Amino acid sequence: MEEEKRETQNQPAEEEDQIVNPWEVAAKDGGKIDYDKLIDKFGCQRLDQTLIDRVHRLTGRPPHVFLRRGVFFAHRDFNEILDAYEKGKKFYLYTGRGPSSEALHLGHLVPFMFTKYLQDVFRVPLVIQLTDDEKCMWKNLTVEESQRLARENAKDIIACGFDITRTFIFSDFDYVGGAFYKNMVKVAKCVTLNKVQGIFGFSGEDHIGKISFPPVQAVPSFPSSFPHLFSGKDDLRCLIPCAIDQDPYFRMTRDAAPRIGYHKPSLIESTFFPALQGETGKMSASDPNSAIYVTDSAKVIKSKINKYAFSGGQDSVEKHRQLGANLEVDISVKYLNFFLDDDAELEHIKKEYAAGRMLTGEVKGRLGSVLSEIVERHRAARASVTDEVVDAFMAARPLPNMFD
Amino acid sequence: MEEEKRETQNQPAEEEDQIVNPWEVAAKDGGKIDYDKLIDKFGCQRLDQTLIDRVHRLTGRPPHVFLRRGVFFAHRDFNEILDAYEKGKKFYLYTGRGPSSEALHLGHLVPFMFTKYLQDVFRVPLVIQLTDDEKCMWKNLTVEESQRLARENAKDIIACGFDITRTFIFSDFDYVGGAFYKNMVKVAKCVTLNKVQGIFGFSGEDHIGKISFPPVQAVPSFPSSFPHLFSGKDDLRCLIPCAIDQDPYFRMTRDAAPRIGYHKPSLIESTFFPALQGETGKMSASDPNSAIYVTDSAKVIKSKINKYAFSGGQDSVEKHRQLGANLEVDISVKYLNFFLDDDAELEHIKKEYAAGRMLTGEVKGRLGSVLSEIVERHRAARASVTDEVVDAFMAARPLPNMFD
Repeated sequence: MEEEKRETQNQPAEEEDQIVNPWEVAAKDGGKIDYDKLIDKFGCQRLDQTLIDRVHRLTGRPPHVFLRRGVFFAHRDFNEILDAYEKGKKFYLYTGRGPSSEALHLGHLVPFMFTKYLQDVFRVPLVIQLTDDEKCMWKNLTVEESQRLARENAKDIIACGFDITRTFIFSDFDYVGGAFYKNMVKVAKCVTLNKVQGIFGFSGEDHIGKISFPPVQAVPSFPSSFPHLFSGKDDLRCLIPCAIDQDPYFRMTRDAAPRIGYHKPSLIESTFFPALQGETGKMSASDPNSAIYVTDSAKVIKSKINKYAFSGGQDSVEKHRQLGANLEVDISVKYLNFFLDDDAELEHIKKEYAAGRMLTGEVKGRLGSVLSEIVERHRAARASVTDEVVDAFMAARPLPNMFD
Repeated sequence: MEEEKRETQNQPAEEEDQIVNPWEVAAKDGGKIDYDKLIDKFGCQRLDQTLIDRVHRLTGRPPHVFLRRGVFFAHRDFNEILDAYEKGKKFYLYTGRGPSSEALHLGHLVPFMFTKYLQDVFRVPLVIQLTDDEKCMWKNLTVEESQRLARENAKDIIACGFDITRTFIFSDFDYVGGAFYKNMVKVAKCVTLNKVQGIFGFSGEDHIGKISFPPVQAVPSFPSSFPHLFSGKDDLRCLIPCAIDQDPYFRMTRDAAPRIGYHKPSLIESTFFPALQGETGKMSASDPNSAIYVTDSAKVIKSKINKYAFSGGQDSVEKHRQLGANLEVDISVKYLNFFLDDDAELEHIKKEYAAGRMLTGEVKGRLGSVLSEIVERHRAARASVTDEVVDAFMAARPLPNMFD
């Protein structure tokens, strides 16, 4: 059996110059993450313009800003999903969240915003896994607290606008069992302890819950894990939009898939959303000033941007007018790259700012209004997500408009 | 937190003089298992006459032959179960089977026969776990084949005479999930990889299914794993009748229990049932002549005993009349010790055989009739276990007469 590319490069994380795994993202010597190196190391593929053009052509809709601007920059076999789609074969989407915090920040919304776009343009079903079991084990939360956070986070996810007739959201604590558990056992049989230690860096001091978990995140990649959705559709392909730090789970999954008679899932992977303090900084749950939360007021958002958003501008207005801003390190420009839809306006800002004709304060002002609008829209949408709506999304039911 | 006695004696099995774990039982240098050493090593307690007398007094019924004759010879906190019972507090029983073979042999029936006795005399509920997930992983069976064997084995178990109004039998593939899965996660959080490697001897080449499994066997020890049976009865104690090779699972469970707010389960543990070829031999699934199966005809039973049952008698009749039999190694006597109810007759046979007045052939003849009767009774009982009866035992339902 040919192994998934790079999967068995069992190097301990400590020896590598940058660390990217589902629990830790750290650049070399406090620098920036080298995404090209990451693609090489993980063995995934760069998402090039040809593929983006193909999405445009196949869907008849302009590619999402996250595609146009390289936020989703890597993939595994996304072309095969498009090949099949072109021949009239649908697929399903799978994404998820580990519910470890009460309020989400903008970085958390990135995969969901993109997944909603994919659901809309391809008109396909979507499963969203809330890994409350994982967070109970990693963050030492109680079962009850993990499940409460899962429901709270589900409200934020639903507020992104998913189509209830095509979307199933599930908590692992609720849903593990039956066909799902059978697939977990099948995957677990294919993965040695050495292999998970190589992929995830687990040590002997780690508890066995951590070692048991990877199959839980693996099996939503297989349609037979969802008999109420995909009964008799074992051949359906799965596309997983996620940040690239989740790639290790799916390298493992892709390696196991053919051995148990399933398709390998395809992936489309994003960069990380940077902290306000700059790409070398990490968004930290213990530092609320490192991120914009969906619960922040417009005033707080404005203040956080003004105080903390790392600026590529010069120290004085005179120097700035003369030298211009360094866009490579400017967080306001990076955030606008994620969230300002208008390509022409973004180009204009970048040009003027780089030339020194626009000041950091002006760019931050524009960012403040863009983010406040997004957060305000999110807050209004979330307010309408009642417990009944959450129950409806989380009911194990057939999805009526799944493939229409 | 004080650790369960001997639990953290992380010695690799290779360095020990006898190996006893759930997958391997091997005496030192082909000799006999030293049960005293095993009690010391595992840190459990010897089941002494005082406890047996107490069972007699509390139940008003003669102790089971397996108690009177030292088949169940060790325990953990069985006295606490009796203390509570004496004060009017009931408990529940938990036992199980890994369904790896089509037909059971007599050794497989030992824990079930004893559990039926305990259920009868204490009038308590019982849960029986069929670890089809374990066998799928260890024996490399398919999910479907493991589940088929689980149902076939359930018929043999039911044929032992369990009370359907007090007994719930479940397959892991069917039942893992919900409250059961939540308890699995709670246990997994308490057990490090180093610890399971120490207890069970797993290596890096083992697949992670093996490392994930111990919590599955642990959590039936906790009443909250069975909300349809024990809702609101979190304080109910659990007694586990099993062979002593299962002790490692429950040392691990007992260590975790207080850390997650549960009672430690109590245990009552048996010796191993010897192979026909002698206590140094192992009953082997690949050698059908090493055991009497419940599917063997009276003729086959007689033939197996005559051909294979290791004899402690002398080589010639003359020598036998002069020296008598060595009862310590005679398998027919050992089997009669398990299955001949009549204490007086057993004593008579042992006395006459040891003195050389009874020949091996006569003892074997008596054993043949005893075992044929048991197997015939079992076969008749099993024939009446329809698929509907299996479904009824395996339905997740309240048990009406649980504590009456």
